[in-house]
Amino acid sequence: MEIFKFMVPEIIFGKDTLSLVGDSARRLGATKVLVVSDKGVAQAGWVDQAVKHLKEVELEYQVWTGPSENPKDYEIDQGKEIYLDAGCDAVVGLGGGSAIDAAKAVAILASNGGKIQDYEGVDKIRKPMPPLICVATTAGAAAEVTQFAIIVDSHRRVKMTIGSKSLVPDIAIIDPLLLSTIGARLTANTGIDALTHAIEAYVSVAATPITDIAALKAIEMINTSLRASVASRTNLEAKTKMAMASLLAGMAMSNAIMGAVHAMAHPLGGLLNLPHGEVNSILLPHVMRFNMIACMDRYVDIARAMGEKVDHLSTRDAAEKAIEAVERLCRDIGAKRRLSEIGLQEEHIMELSRAAAEDVCLITNPRDASVEEIAEIYRAAL
Amino acid sequence: MEIFKFMVPEIIFGKDTLSLVGDSARRLGATKVLVVSDKGVAQAGWVDQAVKHLKEVELEYQVWTGPSENPKDYEIDQGKEIYLDAGCDAVVGLGGGSAIDAAKAVAILASNGGKIQDYEGVDKIRKPMPPLICVATTAGAAAEVTQFAIIVDSHRRVKMTIGSKSLVPDIAIIDPLLLSTIGARLTANTGIDALTHAIEAYVSVAATPITDIAALKAIEMINTSLRASVASRTNLEAKTKMAMASLLAGMAMSNAIMGAVHAMAHPLGGLLNLPHGEVNSILLPHVMRFNMIACMDRYVDIARAMGEKVDHLSTRDAAEKAIEAVERLCRDIGAKRRLSEIGLQEEHIMELSRAAAEDVCLITNPRDASVEEIAEIYRAAL
Repeated sequence: MEIFKFMVPEIIFGKDTLSLVGDSARRLGATKVLVVSDKGVAQAGWVDQAVKHLKEVELEYQVWTGPSENPKDYEIDQGKEIYLDAGCDAVVGLGGGSAIDAAKAVAILASNGGKIQDYEGVDKIRKPMPPLICVATTAGAAAEVTQFAIIVDSHRRVKMTIGSKSLVPDIAIIDPLLLSTIGARLTANTGIDALTHAIEAYVSVAATPITDIAALKAIEMINTSLRASVASRTNLEAKTKMAMASLLAGMAMSNAIMGAVHAMAHPLGGLLNLPHGEVNSILLPHVMRFNMIACMDRYVDIARAMGEKVDHLSTRDAAEKAIEAVERLCRDIGAKRRLSEIGLQEEHIMELSRAAAEDVCLITNPRDASVEEIAEIYRAAL
Repeated sequence: MEIFKFMVPEIIFGKDTLSLVGDSARRLGATKVLVVSDKGVAQAGWVDQAVKHLKEVELEYQVWTGPSENPKDYEIDQGKEIYLDAGCDAVVGLGGGSAIDAAKAVAILASNGGKIQDYEGVDKIRKPMPPLICVATTAGAAAEVTQFAIIVDSHRRVKMTIGSKSLVPDIAIIDPLLLSTIGARLTANTGIDALTHAIEAYVSVAATPITDIAALKAIEMINTSLRASVASRTNLEAKTKMAMASLLAGMAMSNAIMGAVHAMAHPLGGLLNLPHGEVNSILLPHVMRFNMIACMDRYVDIARAMGEKVDHLSTRDAAEKAIEAVERLCRDIGAKRRLSEIGLQEEHIMELSRAAAEDVCLITNPRDASVEEIAEIYRAAL
């Protein structure tokens, strides 16, 4: 806790808060809004709902549902053209991590020009972005509260991390009702993504008391509500708790940054286009095992937040309980166990490991990791 | 947790972060800054330090140290004239609650015009305010993170509460080094102000999981570090923990709002010009006793956060421990015990009680309180 910064958007949380998207855009001075979403969210009916609320306050709008899972650089160029051609002056991102990251990237290019590669890294955005409102449709990615956007460079086949305070949206809307149209598989994957954010933030070398309390509360809420949220589409209490847990985990992660799970997940998304949440749920226990010696006391806190009784155990044994509790949660919700099940082959591992070793998320990982050590973790998870 | 909003400024925390005030103002587009502070802060040398950092980035500036403790409406008019005459386009508030509330009020009038009475109540500010950076010199008031400003109406002799998201500063700077020039008495009073924020936020009817974790962590940190901070001007570790506790309490209080302690303290400040922190430290245990039946489980949490061992006690007895722990802390740091010691007389009580019953802070108090019940609490504290 030497010097740190902490930044979150204005947050609007609760049932039916999607209805405030029009008011929120008006309040930020918007006259014509580009709604960035994706086809799944549109099919679920949420784009129509959002548009209805924009119309209610007499805002003009243009809808773009072009971004794919792990959004690509050329898609961002398309989005920017649509924004400029339609004469928009604000952006609404409506979706999970992919749609919201695409919304952020379009907003960057809309006012800063150039290509999205120009903004890879930290603090490269120079000019103010248009007003940006993000509405979450999953409980996990938390892109609606973070200072990050992740876009795939389609030539290099890598995920670029763009980090800037300018990417913290002006307003984040988190409406648990939107989680009711998501199937069990995506609920599970995004839930483990939130757990990964919380655990990586808690053991991050950039953690602070503010991020710590948010991370631990998120872990506790995920442990007590993710199973029930996966089990039922209509359990609104569980969905509301997962929405809150994802928000807390995102607040922690955006400000404490991440670690080796995300550093290793990014190349898997870029090279093999694998779903981010699924990758995380496989990697998380393996990375936890590797990181444990760096911060055993913090693992004991995680074990407690996961509901484990550890007062009678040695620190070493209690820390181990954190990993076991995460593994049991992943099993209970039917998460995949091996990267080979979703397409990874041994021949990819060295290329992936070299990319992971260069990823900005590794800087805040609590244990130093060489390319060879990263490769060992991939192999353990293969 | 039905629907709620949560908003905090961009926060910069840590030793020597006062040096970032110039950069921060530049980043917000300032060219000439009005520095609003007070004579005590100027005598301690912090105004000169702030000015040095503004000069380093070639910003023009004007200093105004006019606001008194419990700043008055006519002082705000003076500040506004100075802002306009000097052609300023941004405000830096540097101080405890009084200087920062004055800075906020000047910023309101600078762009919205009229008199400060026009903005009493909730959401009355219509036009965007100039960029506002607030630097805390006490660990307690937390005005640098809140959506409130409290200004005395000198004719009516009441403290007006102005509440608006527009009052959340753009950037809050919290530099624990600035706490090293404060004497024991002010350290104690402001520390109990922070404790009051945390406890009132935790039992507020508008509490949310986000404000709860911040409030409980603040209570825990105040209990473990306020005594040491009062005991020594140079204990930087204790000062840093108190700065963090005040920040967390402020984040909780700004978003969960306050309760009867603040509702009752405001008229004492307005009518008798008494120091806010001192009033709080006398009222807090008495209001806690009154409120206890509204939320006994929450009192048990507070007792635990205050370090009490309560697992073997009934809920009722454990709740009582929260009040005892607060009383013991107040005694340990030499806080005054009776309102009569600082000037209250029986004849004031009914007028004060009627004013407190109208205060906006009472809306979120967990127990309904009639004018007569409020008078009883004042009498118990007399």
